[in-house]
Amino acid sequence: MNYEFILKDLKPSENETKGVYEISDKLIKTIDNICKNEDINAKAHLVGSVSKKTWLSGKSDIDIFIRFPLDTSITTLKEKGLYIGHKVNDLMNGEAWEHYASHPYLTCDIEGYEVDFVPCYKIKTGDQIKSAVDRTVLHTEYIQSNLKEEQIGEVLLLKKFMDCIGVYGSEFKTGGFAGYLCELLILKYNTFENTLKEVSKWRYNVKIDLENYGTSKNFKKDPLVFIDPTDKNRNVGAALRLERMVDFILASRNFLKIIKDTKLSEEEKEKKVREYFTPLKKELLNKENIINDFLDRGTKTLILQFDIPEISADSLHPQLKKTIESLSEKIETEEFSVFKSDYWTNEEDTAIFIIELNVYTQSKYKIHKGPKIWPEKACDNFKGKWGEKCYPLDDFLVLTKEREFRTVEEYLRYILTEEHISIIKVGKNIRKTICDSYQLNNIEDILLNLEVNNKYDFLNKLDDFLRPGQYLKR
Amino acid sequence: MNYEFILKDLKPSENETKGVYEISDKLIKTIDNICKNEDINAKAHLVGSVSKKTWLSGKSDIDIFIRFPLDTSITTLKEKGLYIGHKVNDLMNGEAWEHYASHPYLTCDIEGYEVDFVPCYKIKTGDQIKSAVDRTVLHTEYIQSNLKEEQIGEVLLLKKFMDCIGVYGSEFKTGGFAGYLCELLILKYNTFENTLKEVSKWRYNVKIDLENYGTSKNFKKDPLVFIDPTDKNRNVGAALRLERMVDFILASRNFLKIIKDTKLSEEEKEKKVREYFTPLKKELLNKENIINDFLDRGTKTLILQFDIPEISADSLHPQLKKTIESLSEKIETEEFSVFKSDYWTNEEDTAIFIIELNVYTQSKYKIHKGPKIWPEKACDNFKGKWGEKCYPLDDFLVLTKEREFRTVEEYLRYILTEEHISIIKVGKNIRKTICDSYQLNNIEDILLNLEVNNKYDFLNKLDDFLRPGQYLKR
Repeated sequence: MNYEFILKDLKPSENETKGVYEISDKLIKTIDNICKNEDINAKAHLVGSVSKKTWLSGKSDIDIFIRFPLDTSITTLKEKGLYIGHKVNDLMNGEAWEHYASHPYLTCDIEGYEVDFVPCYKIKTGDQIKSAVDRTVLHTEYIQSNLKEEQIGEVLLLKKFMDCIGVYGSEFKTGGFAGYLCELLILKYNTFENTLKEVSKWRYNVKIDLENYGTSKNFKKDPLVFIDPTDKNRNVGAALRLERMVDFILASRNFLKIIKDTKLSEEEKEKKVREYFTPLKKELLNKENIINDFLDRGTKTLILQFDIPEISADSLHPQLKKTIESLSEKIETEEFSVFKSDYWTNEEDTAIFIIELNVYTQSKYKIHKGPKIWPEKACDNFKGKWGEKCYPLDDFLVLTKEREFRTVEEYLRYILTEEHISIIKVGKNIRKTICDSYQLNNIEDILLNLEVNNKYDFLNKLDDFLRPGQYLKR
Repeated sequence: MNYEFILKDLKPSENETKGVYEISDKLIKTIDNICKNEDINAKAHLVGSVSKKTWLSGKSDIDIFIRFPLDTSITTLKEKGLYIGHKVNDLMNGEAWEHYASHPYLTCDIEGYEVDFVPCYKIKTGDQIKSAVDRTVLHTEYIQSNLKEEQIGEVLLLKKFMDCIGVYGSEFKTGGFAGYLCELLILKYNTFENTLKEVSKWRYNVKIDLENYGTSKNFKKDPLVFIDPTDKNRNVGAALRLERMVDFILASRNFLKIIKDTKLSEEEKEKKVREYFTPLKKELLNKENIINDFLDRGTKTLILQFDIPEISADSLHPQLKKTIESLSEKIETEEFSVFKSDYWTNEEDTAIFIIELNVYTQSKYKIHKGPKIWPEKACDNFKGKWGEKCYPLDDFLVLTKEREFRTVEEYLRYILTEEHISIIKVGKNIRKTICDSYQLNNIEDILLNLEVNNKYDFLNKLDDFLRPGQYLKR
């Protein structure tokens, strides 16, 4: 299929392109001047999608890496790196925010562009890496050298498609495909459409090794193995979550069914294809509809809201994920039943666990299983602990014991205390805030009175919770 | 301990003994006369506890076997056997009921004694057996030859103890110890108290082989293996259910703790020992208490009552057991949760399933799991069947599907129809009656209006249901 009718909206205009490169040049020159004048041994380097010409129109975030020689101490690198960033930002009258991922960097708003200044080491091969971001320059150079002019449009189509089906972005929140991985897929499969065709046949642990390093056999468990052409011992797909890979495969199949559908006229086909490159429309997204949908399910849904500390999103998300998963597991251990659970955060000040329960209340007693009856000593010990009310069930000694918790709410209020929080696996940075600040409500009550920043995004999350897989087809 | 104070109540009085033997002699002579006069080749033989002098005072059921030569046809044996039984019953002005277990026999009420007339083959060794009852005579002879006079009291103590803790009787309803097995245990362990001492150390699959046949290794799965001294390939413990064996072990330990308790005076000890030889007193046994106990448990208890056909108790009980077990299992498969279930029958015209539920209602939807997403063909088939609402969960294609049954009652009403009853394993003789006649009620409602024969026994069953293990200690 000819995708020109889609591409024309994805390609940056001449004006946009000109503007981006002008400001990028200016920033690089400014940095290099600062280094020269102040005798700092570093050099600016444009990386990322702008440097590779693979950014989607309107998404021209500028990534400038400030490269230091390998013998620079990490302290100097951090200090000088941030210093240079702030200085160029000031010179350009920008606004700056410091970030600390594994590595400190500066995000600035300069003349309306979002610009990242990232200090790093200047390495020549992947195995020289000292800091996680060092290899970005190698990635950029590899794509610049290998991606053909006519493949750029294919990258844009793939990125936009992925974005609209919810699998684009390698940050932990999404766990999807990084821009670099998109570009590599086009290097491997040549076109957008052919990529989807190949992807629709992917199996678990599919292996791609562009440079034939022969190292892919070392990655036995990753859902997708794409050996980094700049580092034979690295899997570019390592951060891709199985769910996102599966989403991509299913959406590819759905999309290809339209392409192959001989009953559709060209016009109908174009209309449907265009929908796949348009964010999903959510017309029913409002509080009342969501409440009604939850009520219809006949479940009980608890909303556990709590404060979060100031930590990076990529550190916060895995902690929230781990905690809600462990909590759900423990709820099931108490013989309640979780129908579905998930978390949401505005990444600023609050997080929410959504816990939908199939079994929320239970009867008064449970069977507490003791030892096999055969060894008398073990039985005596058990009786010593639990008293004379033990009785046999099959060949076990058991006890009908009053449950400590007859509702999930009682159980949560027990767990979420400093004394008992260790029962679950809880993210280390939220351990204290969750106990200190949590509020527990029914979804119906909370939705009518919810006050959080980015509330629309929370409603969106609830909508996704209710309608799994909705992004995968149009 | 000296158990004379218990034994004096267990031993039949001289009067009782005299009466039993007089009537037994008379019956045997009458039968032998009939045979002689009518030229029937058969001979009467007194068997069972009366013949072994091991009956408990007041329980002098008389078992008379009518033995035919091995070459008699089974038709002749049945016909002549019943004929003789009826004839002697008529001559003695008794009342008779025919029974058909694996084998037909006659139970009569003659001068206030319960007398069984059982036709069988005259065999000399266990391997000649033609009908299930043939070996009874061999058992009788073995005990008569081997049980010493001073061991008879020990047998009586053991039988009474077992009876009071609920493990005496090999019929399927109890699944406990047969009289013959009690006698063999005394042959093995000599005294009542020593038997309890040895039993309290029993392990699963414990093996006893009085005659050293060396065949016990062939019984790997039976909880108790006691090689029949009259048939080396038979386990006398085959019909003993694990639960009853376990009950016996635990009660033995409980009893021995009293015997060994040095803090008790002789008087206190005798009082407590006496309680173990007295049926459990149930002072709280009435409808109101039982209803309150069920309500306190916070469960939902369903009572499923239905008609039963006229079949023998030993055929009925396993069918009821199998059916309620299968039904409980299926209820759990539908994600409800059974806290406890059991059955009861008056063995006349009605049976009842008691189904106590921890989870009785459920939410509207369930997750229906489809194939792994990797093979596209399997996904297409699944979608073809379930429509486009499928979505991925991990790497499975699944569906949020409306549950067919949101309460256990709905599910039971679905199952208990001719069309769907095959979903469960149902006893062949109750298959039709359960579908045609069942009534489903809450325990509270049914108890206030229950009309069945032997209602007290049902209340007793419910009491046992609520208080498992209550017979095992005093």
